[in-house]
Amino acid sequence: MSTLEEKTIHSEEIFSGKVISLHLYDVELPNGKQSKREIIKHPGAVAILALTPENKIIMVEQYRKALERAIVEIPAGKLEKGEDPSECALRELEEETGYVCENLELLTSFYTSPGFADELVYVYLAKGLTKKENSRALDEDEFVKLEELTLSEALQYIKEQKIYDAKTIYAVQYLQLQEALNKK
Amino acid sequence: MSTLEEKTIHSEEIFSGKVISLHLYDVELPNGKQSKREIIKHPGAVAILALTPENKIIMVEQYRKALERAIVEIPAGKLEKGEDPSECALRELEEETGYVCENLELLTSFYTSPGFADELVYVYLAKGLTKKENSRALDEDEFVKLEELTLSEALQYIKEQKIYDAKTIYAVQYLQLQEALNKK
Repeated sequence: MSTLEEKTIHSEEIFSGKVISLHLYDVELPNGKQSKREIIKHPGAVAILALTPENKIIMVEQYRKALERAIVEIPAGKLEKGEDPSECALRELEEETGYVCENLELLTSFYTSPGFADELVYVYLAKGLTKKENSRALDEDEFVKLEELTLSEALQYIKEQKIYDAKTIYAVQYLQLQEALNKK
Repeated sequence: MSTLEEKTIHSEEIFSGKVISLHLYDVELPNGKQSKREIIKHPGAVAILALTPENKIIMVEQYRKALERAIVEIPAGKLEKGEDPSECALRELEEETGYVCENLELLTSFYTSPGFADELVYVYLAKGLTKKENSRALDEDEFVKLEELTLSEALQYIKEQKIYDAKTIYAVQYLQLQEALNKK
């Protein structure tokens, strides 16, 4: 894959915030010419497809300032520095939903926007849920509403664009696939 | 959904580049307290799951500076100002692969990273492909290598993390689902 490489000639940090940082790169292209790349660095995140004993999906409704609206997503959160993704998944599940789980399985991981950002999301499946008394609190600037959806309700939410983000649409399609495979 | 709203108190553009811009918001939270949000604005994008008559998936290998490596993705590209997503899909398919298609169907659309970016990706299914002589050229800073993969080869690429981004993993899972449904 080496012939496609874009070598760094110069890089500069334009902004460093509490979540993301912005970097400008001057790169040398495979044909020897130069171009610029605008890159966002992000700590990475986890997302959890958590299923109740009744096979309902636990969802959180949350306002997303980038979209200027609330959407319904599977629980998710950013990795803390040096945090193991599976530990982060257990922490975020408890913080956002009050549930702890017996079984946690990594389904996949993906870069969300490789054209401009290095954010990598780990998607987990959580089963064997139990509600915990006195569960860990949300971050002080996080406000979410919990919902439990059947697969067909989740598909309807996708149609209505209440569910509207990559990780949640992936997770709902994952359940559709499992159902289709089990019915064969 | 109004009770979750984060009202803008102040916003500021920190950076405006050729692809993205970075904005800082001071917001009022639902509890009346304040917080800051770091937001990336992006023009949006399209991605195309293009299937050959032999049911192979057309993929492009491309160096992603954000990841400092090349990955294999379905063809994709940014929306130009005011461009219709389906027109953009036809344009990007031709530019990146040299193919034109008879049938183009919108499969879904999703926000890739709603926590910090407004990038919306439209994912299309393209069938009835024919190779075009003298097809439109790539942007001058774009370099891609074409590959055609069977579904099982694509699944193997996901395992090997050669395919490693949300839109492509969604598209491959979409094909798995169609195959499972057709076999029922």
